[in-house]
Amino acid sequence: MEPWSIEFAGRLDEHTFHSAALEGNALGDPADRPLWVYLPPGYDDDPDRRYPTIYAIQGLTGQLDMWRNRSPFRRNFPELVDELLAAGEAPPCICVWVDCWTSLGGSQFLDSPGTGDYHTYLCEEIVPWVDERYRTLAAAEHRGIAGKSSGGYGAMVTPMLRPDLFGGLATHAGDALFEACYLPGFRKTVRTLRDEYEGSFDRFWEDFRSRPALAKDSDMHPLNDWCMAACYSADEDGTVRLPFDPATSELVPAVWERWLEWDPVRMVPGHAEALRAMRAIYIDAGKRDQWFLDLGAEAFRRALEGIGVTDVYFEIFDATHMGIDYRYPISLRYLAERLAPAATPPD
Amino acid sequence: MEPWSIEFAGRLDEHTFHSAALEGNALGDPADRPLWVYLPPGYDDDPDRRYPTIYAIQGLTGQLDMWRNRSPFRRNFPELVDELLAAGEAPPCICVWVDCWTSLGGSQFLDSPGTGDYHTYLCEEIVPWVDERYRTLAAAEHRGIAGKSSGGYGAMVTPMLRPDLFGGLATHAGDALFEACYLPGFRKTVRTLRDEYEGSFDRFWEDFRSRPALAKDSDMHPLNDWCMAACYSADEDGTVRLPFDPATSELVPAVWERWLEWDPVRMVPGHAEALRAMRAIYIDAGKRDQWFLDLGAEAFRRALEGIGVTDVYFEIFDATHMGIDYRYPISLRYLAERLAPAATPPD
Amino acid sequence: MEPWSIEFAGRLDEHTFHSAALEGNALGDPADRPLWVYLPPGYDDDPDRRYPTIYAIQGLTGQLDMWRNRSPFRRNFPELVDELLAAGEAPPCICVWVDCWTSLGGSQFLDSPGTGDYHTYLCEEIVPWVDERYRTLAAAEHRGIAGKSSGGYGAMVTPMLRPDLFGGLATHAGDALFEACYLPGFRKTVRTLRDEYEGSFDRFWEDFRSRPALAKDSDMHPLNDWCMAACYSADEDGTVRLPFDPATSELVPAVWERWLEWDPVRMVPGHAEALRAMRAIYIDAGKRDQWFLDLGAEAFRRALEGIGVTDVYFEIFDATHMGIDYRYPISLRYLAERLAPAATPPD
Amino acid sequence: MEPWSIEFAGRLDEHTFHSAALEGNALGDPADRPLWVYLPPGYDDDPDRRYPTIYAIQGLTGQLDMWRNRSPFRRNFPELVDELLAAGEAPPCICVWVDCWTSLGGSQFLDSPGTGDYHTYLCEEIVPWVDERYRTLAAAEHRGIAGKSSGGYGAMVTPMLRPDLFGGLATHAGDALFEACYLPGFRKTVRTLRDEYEGSFDRFWEDFRSRPALAKDSDMHPLNDWCMAACYSADEDGTVRLPFDPATSELVPAVWERWLEWDPVRMVPGHAEALRAMRAIYIDAGKRDQWFLDLGAEAFRRALEGIGVTDVYFEIFDATHMGIDYRYPISLRYLAERLAPAATPPD
Repeated sequence: MEPWSIEFAGRLDEHTFHSAALEGNALGDPADRPLWVYLPPGYDDDPDRRYPTIYAIQGLTGQLDMWRNRSPFRRNFPELVDELLAAGEAPPCICVWVDCWTSLGGSQFLDSPGTGDYHTYLCEEIVPWVDERYRTLAAAEHRGIAGKSSGGYGAMVTPMLRPDLFGGLATHAGDALFEACYLPGFRKTVRTLRDEYEGSFDRFWEDFRSRPALAKDSDMHPLNDWCMAACYSADEDGTVRLPFDPATSELVPAVWERWLEWDPVRMVPGHAEALRAMRAIYIDAGKRDQWFLDLGAEAFRRALEGIGVTDVYFEIFDATHMGIDYRYPISLRYLAERLAPAATPPD
Repeated sequence: MEPWSIEFAGRLDEHTFHSAALEGNALGDPADRPLWVYLPPGYDDDPDRRYPTIYAIQGLTGQLDMWRNRSPFRRNFPELVDELLAAGEAPPCICVWVDCWTSLGGSQFLDSPGTGDYHTYLCEEIVPWVDERYRTLAAAEHRGIAGKSSGGYGAMVTPMLRPDLFGGLATHAGDALFEACYLPGFRKTVRTLRDEYEGSFDRFWEDFRSRPALAKDSDMHPLNDWCMAACYSADEDGTVRLPFDPATSELVPAVWERWLEWDPVRMVPGHAEALRAMRAIYIDAGKRDQWFLDLGAEAFRRALEGIGVTDVYFEIFDATHMGIDYRYPISLRYLAERLAPAATPPD
Repeated sequence: MEPWSIEFAGRLDEHTFHSAALEGNALGDPADRPLWVYLPPGYDDDPDRRYPTIYAIQGLTGQLDMWRNRSPFRRNFPELVDELLAAGEAPPCICVWVDCWTSLGGSQFLDSPGTGDYHTYLCEEIVPWVDERYRTLAAAEHRGIAGKSSGGYGAMVTPMLRPDLFGGLATHAGDALFEACYLPGFRKTVRTLRDEYEGSFDRFWEDFRSRPALAKDSDMHPLNDWCMAACYSADEDGTVRLPFDPATSELVPAVWERWLEWDPVRMVPGHAEALRAMRAIYIDAGKRDQWFLDLGAEAFRRALEGIGVTDVYFEIFDATHMGIDYRYPISLRYLAERLAPAATPPD
Repeated sequence: MEPWSIEFAGRLDEHTFHSAALEGNALGDPADRPLWVYLPPGYDDDPDRRYPTIYAIQGLTGQLDMWRNRSPFRRNFPELVDELLAAGEAPPCICVWVDCWTSLGGSQFLDSPGTGDYHTYLCEEIVPWVDERYRTLAAAEHRGIAGKSSGGYGAMVTPMLRPDLFGGLATHAGDALFEACYLPGFRKTVRTLRDEYEGSFDRFWEDFRSRPALAKDSDMHPLNDWCMAACYSADEDGTVRLPFDPATSELVPAVWERWLEWDPVRMVPGHAEALRAMRAIYIDAGKRDQWFLDLGAEAFRRALEGIGVTDVYFEIFDATHMGIDYRYPISLRYLAERLAPAATPPD
């Protein structure tokens, strides 16, 4: 009954997935995770047919059930996928929503002693599990990954690290060009710590945990900086190293270098072979993105160009970082077309 | 499995409600509506017990399923209710979520030829239906209504209009003091119409319906102004009258007067008897509310004081208009205490 | 030596003017005022020639010496006038800068028991004095008045009140359409009073006078509202009546009506004859004006149209309220052309 | 006649200074500059007395005559100096206002092939000229330098470079900690170039020079970045090297390193001896400074602490970057006390 709910043409399976990789993670976060698998219309009628698969991952603070959030007058992503496929506007595909939430906000879809082994969980556990239970085309050339913001980050780096698994990627406003997207926020974090928490991240977290989360406008920057440090620059023993002096925001070059090693823009040359093998690369961002991820998108595109990869979808559109879920079906269609068995060229 | 879902101690019944009152409404919006009824822990174990009932209504653009939206690190309202009651921190009560969405954004919970008869639907249809099917204490002194923003508006005016039905109200940042909350926005609407729509509301709506809703920052003011006019100043034939000249924002006094007649602050003296009969009045708002509803809250409180009603809960807290769902359990508890059979005084 | 100073082609006479009208004014502000008279190139060489005169007045908080303020990379208004006339790009004219500063910020160029008789001072004292000492064309058809913001207000209302003196006017972002430019600010004033001054204007002024003026972002709204009330709605004994309740911003209709009587938009019908006699009416404003004076400009234009006055210069340009001094020479030229003895039509 | 002008108790001499060092500068800016020298009350009555001297320098886009700009209800800096000294609230001193304006906005008070030899002009020409013509105490221990923003920068670095000339410094919100104050702006410049100037600084300057300067909100960042590059990283032939890719804002490390060599925070260890010899170091900034120069101030203070310099005035106060001229007399008094012949300790 619209607009309250949409009758699906396909089918959405909801699972609980137990991850061995996440057991005993540094944050004590659950090893049991929700996992959704969407099967396109016709899946059950054609028992021999196999499909490309697209993995969808979330941005910072995202947890799986948020995919169902309703924005005014809009459909959510699962509904949009179903609508697209029901209308035959994209080749049929399987869509998998994976939860990589952490109690710090996220994982960047990496293995880190500061958060947990989310990269392993995604690549070594979820992917084989899905391939085993569903009629996927279980090869990189038919498997893609897509996300927004930190999810876009994951969509850029995961295929670079595992080109054997992923042959397509779509990044919507993905974290990239760290001096543009992260560094300018450090100074805001420092002010918040100075003005509200006596300069201490410990006090910030203590306060943050004690009241409605994100109830203060100033919450986001400390949360982001700490979480990213937990993902990019945690020591083996789990100690989180900050790339800046929390009293001034002065860069700590040795730690900042650790971050830069994880900047998708800077990772491109070292993963040129993997990227050249991609069958689909989709990049977009809003031109007024609060985190300036439009510049990260352009820098990533240029880095790809630098290694000879120019067959990419690229668009900078008029929007901020928020409320751009209506872009997801555009990339889904692009990936589905490129990853379909006899690839239909994009129009 | 937290944080993705919460096992309820109580029970949430989901219904589809067919409204005769909404049939043939001016906007062609559905007459079938979702309706949720929450039953507190123990409801099924104690088949003779009756409970106070609290109706929850939404703000502009709200549709019922949004109550399930997940904010980062937080519980949604049904979860918070269940948590509160499971912990025994408030007297048990039945909670009813009612959908008064319209394709213009909302209804202000009024009967209007511009939108539909939502007041009748709520008071004449939903309330009796709930009383018939659930073990409510079916009297005004045990029935309350609560909401935020436009929902707060509905929570103020519905009991004024129907003190025979509602004996308690809770308004979180409810629309009030229209010169402070609405009038200043007219000029923004005028600019948007001038700069993007050749001065025409028709073109605005045409554009708005053709693309992702609210994708433009400038969408909210025209939507709000038009929707409020449809609620407050539509003619009998459904023609929507604007309280301002769309070319300049100059007030049209005759129409503006029609609005002011629906201002809760100005309605107080004419409904003094009804308000004096209330067993619970809860008022709050954020001191940085973007719509200045903190001033509306204070003006409403003073108007109540003017008719001798001073036994109210009143709080201006440090927040904006957004993300204040964590306030709902505070008012729910207040209402539940005041509306419980042997009313426990608030602490 | 540019850019530090400009050698004038014309001549700028600086006077101190003693005003009998301002003696004993309500605020105890000085009755002695600076007065500048600019004489165009050639004035001294042609001792029989007479010139049109243009009076320039300032916005709120303006005091005469601010006309010399230097903005980066720009010329100030006297320099721009000299440049324009030296280049022969406008008919020669005399330009008079008049000081109507008060210790509340300004006077709106009106007579008020709350501030002083600035209208009388301007019309009955300054104008005759200038005509006596300089070779003006001493008739309304050769005399104009121009200003920005509150100065634009003065430029609209002074000729309406004294068409025998002024035959041309230029308003840059002049205060008009009071529900759009003033009313929305009341609620900000109320918040400032509530949050910083225990609800008291007295405490505001006490604090304001005790420290660097306008050092707080929140200073502007209380200052503006009080000053406007002193101009528009002071009682005969000098008591300042506010058009809103300082606890809520609720309008006080009787006082608000007194304000509206001084709204240029609403004054137009009552001064139709005067306005039809104008030889030059120039109206502009920035489309992003923080006080929405672009809407006031449009409303004023429409009001003029309503009385049959359509031969006006009208422009809404892309700017805010600030930094638009570069518009002054445009209106000066327009006035000079229209008020010149054998009027050159504008191009 | 207050508030329009203040009768000085001391004397302000206005000079035009011809600089050999600025002849033939890269930008073709004038070699003749205004220079103001203020002599304290009593200077002319006591012909043998000699005085400490304080040099005042300006921020970006500042030109000397701007010191006379009038802000509402306030005195300007020369007036404040005179008021302070007339009241005997600080030891008498000579105050010198030096013009280091360039057509790019400023010079950072350095010698650069991109702008001109402003450091030489200040240190080798102005200082001796003043010492020759006025009864100064012509020694570093009696000579200080003060400024705000870029002027604060100049006040930090000039004494580091020339401790033989300057024994005291005062920085109000001075440029420091370049990753916090400059780097985050690069991305804004890139967007402006992309959205308005086809990615080209040439087009930006062409447009900027063709219309009222700074009439666009977006002007400031490109102007700042280019000007700083002209000061910090111009090649010998005058070519300006940018520290970022103008298409993405990606850092160009080799050029960025050239900037960092001029960061006052990073210059401290290399000029430890000079800084330890200072008799007065005054540091302040607003805690809401738009350029985050409060963090630069703190970092500079910590760098000083790192070399054992802890006898400094340090204050972070509640303000933004703008409108903080009321702070100048505080530093002037501090410097005057510390640099006076028999130093009076600060209270």
